[in-house]
Amino acid sequence: MYVQMKVVVKISGKFISPIDKPLVREYAKTLDQIIEEGHELFVVVGGGSIARKYIDLVNSNNFLKDLIGIEASRLNARALAYTMKHSIKRIPESIDDLLKLYSLNFRKAIISGGLQPGQSTNAVSLLIAELVGAELVVNATTVDALYDKPPSDPTAKKLLKVSYDEALRILSSTQWKQEPGRYELFDLLSLHIAKRSKIPIAIVNGSDPLNVYNAIVKGYYGSLITNELSKEL
Amino acid sequence: MYVQMKVVVKISGKFISPIDKPLVREYAKTLDQIIEEGHELFVVVGGGSIARKYIDLVNSNNFLKDLIGIEASRLNARALAYTMKHSIKRIPESIDDLLKLYSLNFRKAIISGGLQPGQSTNAVSLLIAELVGAELVVNATTVDALYDKPPSDPTAKKLLKVSYDEALRILSSTQWKQEPGRYELFDLLSLHIAKRSKIPIAIVNGSDPLNVYNAIVKGYYGSLITNELSKEL
Amino acid sequence: MYVQMKVVVKISGKFISPIDKPLVREYAKTLDQIIEEGHELFVVVGGGSIARKYIDLVNSNNFLKDLIGIEASRLNARALAYTMKHSIKRIPESIDDLLKLYSLNFRKAIISGGLQPGQSTNAVSLLIAELVGAELVVNATTVDALYDKPPSDPTAKKLLKVSYDEALRILSSTQWKQEPGRYELFDLLSLHIAKRSKIPIAIVNGSDPLNVYNAIVKGYYGSLITNELSKEL
Amino acid sequence: MYVQMKVVVKISGKFISPIDKPLVREYAKTLDQIIEEGHELFVVVGGGSIARKYIDLVNSNNFLKDLIGIEASRLNARALAYTMKHSIKRIPESIDDLLKLYSLNFRKAIISGGLQPGQSTNAVSLLIAELVGAELVVNATTVDALYDKPPSDPTAKKLLKVSYDEALRILSSTQWKQEPGRYELFDLLSLHIAKRSKIPIAIVNGSDPLNVYNAIVKGYYGSLITNELSKEL
Amino acid sequence: MYVQMKVVVKISGKFISPIDKPLVREYAKTLDQIIEEGHELFVVVGGGSIARKYIDLVNSNNFLKDLIGIEASRLNARALAYTMKHSIKRIPESIDDLLKLYSLNFRKAIISGGLQPGQSTNAVSLLIAELVGAELVVNATTVDALYDKPPSDPTAKKLLKVSYDEALRILSSTQWKQEPGRYELFDLLSLHIAKRSKIPIAIVNGSDPLNVYNAIVKGYYGSLITNELSKEL
Amino acid sequence: MYVQMKVVVKISGKFISPIDKPLVREYAKTLDQIIEEGHELFVVVGGGSIARKYIDLVNSNNFLKDLIGIEASRLNARALAYTMKHSIKRIPESIDDLLKLYSLNFRKAIISGGLQPGQSTNAVSLLIAELVGAELVVNATTVDALYDKPPSDPTAKKLLKVSYDEALRILSSTQWKQEPGRYELFDLLSLHIAKRSKIPIAIVNGSDPLNVYNAIVKGYYGSLITNELSKEL
Repeated sequence: MYVQMKVVVKISGKFISPIDKPLVREYAKTLDQIIEEGHELFVVVGGGSIARKYIDLVNSNNFLKDLIGIEASRLNARALAYTMKHSIKRIPESIDDLLKLYSLNFRKAIISGGLQPGQSTNAVSLLIAELVGAELVVNATTVDALYDKPPSDPTAKKLLKVSYDEALRILSSTQWKQEPGRYELFDLLSLHIAKRSKIPIAIVNGSDPLNVYNAIVKGYYGSLITNELSKEL
Repeated sequence: MYVQMKVVVKISGKFISPIDKPLVREYAKTLDQIIEEGHELFVVVGGGSIARKYIDLVNSNNFLKDLIGIEASRLNARALAYTMKHSIKRIPESIDDLLKLYSLNFRKAIISGGLQPGQSTNAVSLLIAELVGAELVVNATTVDALYDKPPSDPTAKKLLKVSYDEALRILSSTQWKQEPGRYELFDLLSLHIAKRSKIPIAIVNGSDPLNVYNAIVKGYYGSLITNELSKEL
Repeated sequence: MYVQMKVVVKISGKFISPIDKPLVREYAKTLDQIIEEGHELFVVVGGGSIARKYIDLVNSNNFLKDLIGIEASRLNARALAYTMKHSIKRIPESIDDLLKLYSLNFRKAIISGGLQPGQSTNAVSLLIAELVGAELVVNATTVDALYDKPPSDPTAKKLLKVSYDEALRILSSTQWKQEPGRYELFDLLSLHIAKRSKIPIAIVNGSDPLNVYNAIVKGYYGSLITNELSKEL
Repeated sequence: MYVQMKVVVKISGKFISPIDKPLVREYAKTLDQIIEEGHELFVVVGGGSIARKYIDLVNSNNFLKDLIGIEASRLNARALAYTMKHSIKRIPESIDDLLKLYSLNFRKAIISGGLQPGQSTNAVSLLIAELVGAELVVNATTVDALYDKPPSDPTAKKLLKVSYDEALRILSSTQWKQEPGRYELFDLLSLHIAKRSKIPIAIVNGSDPLNVYNAIVKGYYGSLITNELSKEL
Repeated sequence: MYVQMKVVVKISGKFISPIDKPLVREYAKTLDQIIEEGHELFVVVGGGSIARKYIDLVNSNNFLKDLIGIEASRLNARALAYTMKHSIKRIPESIDDLLKLYSLNFRKAIISGGLQPGQSTNAVSLLIAELVGAELVVNATTVDALYDKPPSDPTAKKLLKVSYDEALRILSSTQWKQEPGRYELFDLLSLHIAKRSKIPIAIVNGSDPLNVYNAIVKGYYGSLITNELSKEL
Repeated sequence: MYVQMKVVVKISGKFISPIDKPLVREYAKTLDQIIEEGHELFVVVGGGSIARKYIDLVNSNNFLKDLIGIEASRLNARALAYTMKHSIKRIPESIDDLLKLYSLNFRKAIISGGLQPGQSTNAVSLLIAELVGAELVVNATTVDALYDKPPSDPTAKKLLKVSYDEALRILSSTQWKQEPGRYELFDLLSLHIAKRSKIPIAIVNGSDPLNVYNAIVKGYYGSLITNELSKEL
């Protein structure tokens, strides 16, 4: 017997885009099944390469660059929402939209892209988790776990459980980058929201939707960022 | 001395996309100059290949396929609006938006993508022309003019001036295609709106923004669809 | 035992107006009963004579004439929605409204008027049918069926089943009229949407709401426009 | 030489309706001229007979009856706005709309119908006058002035200047009627808003738009409700 | 066994403010329980002292003074809605919002502050009661009942049942005050809405939420304003 | 002769609140004068003590606590906007609002409070500065300058010019606090936005509006955070 959970899934824009149509269909199927198994689901989709292309295209200030990146992430969010069966077809475009959809919705997944310049889609996933009181954020990303150094470093060690402070320390040690579409900075923001509201974040490899399913239903993950003490694998 | 005109420019999504960044910059510069020369400008941008990719990506009904195509066209519209100097940065997403922007705007270009399922961006350009009382619609497209047969046909003749009815006859003779993103049907709609409100449509080759400038400022064009008698080149 | 259907009902503005109050009350009762019998219901109401009066009244371009006609159709839609028991009291005024109401609604009828200049309320009924995946559009109109010639012609024959293409051919043969409020043109659009998404349209005489009920519950109709071969009565 | 005024004109729905097309055109011309002479203009249009017909049509609670009456008044407001040259084409439908249009508008007339159940269009005209700091409300109505008794009474005397309190006393003495569309009550509300903000109200016979023009430009009126002592004609 | 009721509760801003945190928590708990017992609940919160402070602060016309008072009442409404468990987290800010929330909501309390300049939160409670067809409005106020004279008068008698007309007479006899935030006038409006739609109003002492509970569940109240004959205690 | 500047002023909520009415009036006068001298002005107002009181009042998750704090800051923003002469009376409540007001506004100040959970009003001031291309952000705060240590430390030295990196280092060295209404964290965010878009921030003591005026017109300030090398006083 499973337990019904309230969960936010953040999916990298790399996996929800025209580049890999079968993967999008697979994600839609998996997320629909999670709903059918009784879980309450909120999904945030990143902007991926389409976002980066449009950010590079426009000749504008950084605010508008952020904004076109957000719009690109909404296009990916739409692609997922329109392909899923149990989803709200309206993508929230403001906090007000989010409050309405959240208050009025009944057993469908709410799918979001970015929300506002100055915030990564990671931060949006944590903010939504705060609003809805989610027990878990699953971050389906391009690496399989959090490492104590950049994964490209051969001496990097995978971390199974990491405290918010330790994760902050790791991220802070790398050079921050401030261009739109490069939100390492704002992942600090994500971690701070997670910490203030004690929301555990499971890092999983997003190239297979099954990893998202397993994180929710079986408690499998690459790393878990949480309040507890850090623990190497 | 030039005369100030009220003009709607429809640009194919092929020309406003990350595929050709210098062309987008060139378009922005040209349209800014048209504004600076005192003309009142409204621009509609098509969805192009990004729209077709997302339409192909989603597994949904045709309404939602149309809708994601419209969103893609708005991404292109944003790319142009954010790169231009004299533009409204808010893209209209409904008739209501359009009415507000039109009523309150003061000497900036309003940039739109698609507006509603069941209407091509060509139809949107004609509807906006009706609303604002435009004297001319310039359609910057992938062919240089209207031909009496498909341009691929070696016996096709270029038409300099074409009546609305003749243009309707030419378009009707080809097989209608009804998939989202393929709007030959809705170009019939565009022509009917043009006809009911007697709005001349200049067809120009959109691969060079100068052709748009020349259509407005010098009256040059590939074909002109208008109330007058058709005339071969 | 009946089967629950998803159905869009288009009602001519002639039948939902202050001219015939008992008929409006009768329609409200019948549509409430259809809901109570478990069907999922969407209703589109036309503008009728009130629309034509206001279109004639304003001294404006055709876009604004269309728009005031749409507003008049929304007044009729309100009259129906406010009189019904199982209805959303908010009339959708944009695609965005429609998406929200559709995604969040739970067992009430959504009532719409027109949506956008350049589209008849017939086209709106087909677009909504596409969005919601309706199995049937019932068009409650001023004639009892589709004929192979204008019904006023004494040699006109009633058609029981008509293919989309045959219906298109019949409508195309008559002179198109392009004034706002006269949407013969846009019924071509309706037929093309129906064809691209294979949505059957039942034509019934709207002067008696029972005809709408019977079309849904018993499968009775004057004509059925569908993918199958045409068939005379 | 004239002085530029900020003025709100309330026009009875009787005069802006399909019943008298030349009168609507005449009103549009007169109001455009007032704008052209440099005055800042806000117009509120009543619901008239179309409102009463729809209120009678619906079988609903009084809130929704009020609401359909308001929608009817907006149809009249649109008819005027779309016919005028110097008008915002978007009709405000909430306080928020009103604030935006008011803050962003530049030398066009804002045309409104009713705003909210429980408030007559008379009250709306006073509220708008408060917001914009109007120096005068011109109430173009079906009588030519305020009388000390109902005008049907042969002993009724016309009042040239009336204090707010005296006007309140006259209105209170008549039997209040509370059905939607019958807002004698809310005219008490109008008078209280006028009194708290000391806004003079000129009563003129609305059957001739010239009376509105003369009230603004020449200071002619039937009655003036103001802070000063009442004065019989 | 209890009977499920549809009820609007108006709570004075005095009781929902940072001044008395335990009372706000108590109100939230009581209202949640009313929902849990199966009643359909709508709550309107007044502006209280925070409203009066901001009204006094701004140097503006009365319309904007009213508006900032409304915003303050919405802050109180948020405080209650965010503390409650079974509440819509979006506060309605227009009639349109209200219609959407009302049509789409499913078993949560809708919490509102003021809605529009020129209307007290008392009037809002009656308008909402009209819209939803409430059987009862409970007015949780700073006095325990309606008296035949101002409660400060030692000869004042408490009235158990009062007719609408008698209540109107009592309120009219006192001097009307017209400043924003002082809505004795608009309570006349409230009474007229109550009378036209025959909605009984129970007056209870709001300093204890139990009085609200008892009014709904047990039929206890200080005074009841209703259609029946007035009756002294 | 002065030069017209585009400037964003952030005012601490401590200075725009009912606590000090003469100060609010003084601010309104000063900001109106800045507009009258030809500068383009955007103002962001913080939440102050009213925000902290409501955050403390609600029993909710941190997202909703942030949100009620934002609403309180908007109440302060309204107080300023309604008291000023040359201001938009509509407070932006989303990025979309901001884009519309910014694109359509003509020579009035846009006044904002907070915009979104997870972002301080400081961050909002920097985001708006990015959007509009402001040459300067003036932060009118409760200290007179940035110090190299907390100002309470007697060895703290005032910094006249500080680089973004140095300011980041100073802020990072203090313990981050993550509760809603305590945004030291998000001031890191503000600094990163400032750095990525090279926007200088002048710190001035906000207890006297003249300091804001002098920062804009005369270039006086307590500290300037900028790209240049840090410099002690």
